[in-house]
Amino acid sequence: MVRWEPNPRGRLQEAALALYGERGFENTTVAEIAERAGLTERTFFRHFADKREVLFDGADAFTEAFVGTVRNAPADVAPIDAVTAALEAAAALLADRKFARQRQVVIAASPELQERELSKFASLSTALADALRQRGLAEPAATLTAELAIAVFRVAFERWIEGSEDQDFPQLIRESLDQLRAVTAGA
Amino acid sequence: MVRWEPNPRGRLQEAALALYGERGFENTTVAEIAERAGLTERTFFRHFADKREVLFDGADAFTEAFVGTVRNAPADVAPIDAVTAALEAAAALLADRKFARQRQVVIAASPELQERELSKFASLSTALADALRQRGLAEPAATLTAELAIAVFRVAFERWIEGSEDQDFPQLIRESLDQLRAVTAGA
Repeated sequence: MVRWEPNPRGRLQEAALALYGERGFENTTVAEIAERAGLTERTFFRHFADKREVLFDGADAFTEAFVGTVRNAPADVAPIDAVTAALEAAAALLADRKFARQRQVVIAASPELQERELSKFASLSTALADALRQRGLAEPAATLTAELAIAVFRVAFERWIEGSEDQDFPQLIRESLDQLRAVTAGA
Repeated sequence: MVRWEPNPRGRLQEAALALYGERGFENTTVAEIAERAGLTERTFFRHFADKREVLFDGADAFTEAFVGTVRNAPADVAPIDAVTAALEAAAALLADRKFARQRQVVIAASPELQERELSKFASLSTALADALRQRGLAEPAATLTAELAIAVFRVAFERWIEGSEDQDFPQLIRESLDQLRAVTAGA
């Protein structure tokens, strides 16, 4: 008798990440992921389109947190402040640092996954620039601000997953923004 | 008798770009490119590893202009000024706007080429951050400055290829940097 266990999606993700770390993304099959999670392949495909999508789950919610915050910021908020709020909202979604770190190791080991990750960030940047233009920021400032936001996010994210337990992601974002401000001011 | 013609490399590039534009990158073969250029496949492969590399020719020289300028800037030059000089040096290499515009259209039509282009910029950013660290700029400022430089380059590049003939690429770079400065200052 199979004991009912909750959270099949989370268990599949955990099993996939463990296997990708042990034997590499390319060398892991969906059958192995399902087996490790104590579930069937059919259950896997009810939750994920393929083994790659396990790693990009939540990307839409992440984009929405990011872009939605910019869209919903009051009209008199400066673009950089709207973007700072968006960065903090997106950072708040990534509470599980261990998962984030494991995922990053897997992605760093696969050119295919790296290209996918870059292309996700490129789409996010396009959506963000669009939201900034809708707030009245002209080009090229809108695209530049969007690219700057992605750069700040990625740099703060790397520091967060590599750092010690007491480093707060939103704080790392604020520090990165301060450094960027200092560099552009010619410091 | 085959008439000797100079510049086989340039002719292959021109033929490839024309064919990619006419029938798409995926639907063009090396044999067709060679034929259009009035050359043999063998000559093609003496110059390019595959049909994709025709579009990424010169990437190493471009990276070297960019990164070398930062590396060779006097020690007392502020990072943002070293990066500005690097952007102008890289921009000076792309004198042929018509070629750049055709190439961009081809790349925009192919997810494979887009991913390749993103990955080239990611490598450039890494090399640039490295050069900035060697000049004594700490992390995360070095990585952020490198990402900012790439963003400025790409935005100015898009404006350059889309704009009218009288827009000067280095001038567009300076304008983009000014806009970025205004945004980070909270304007």
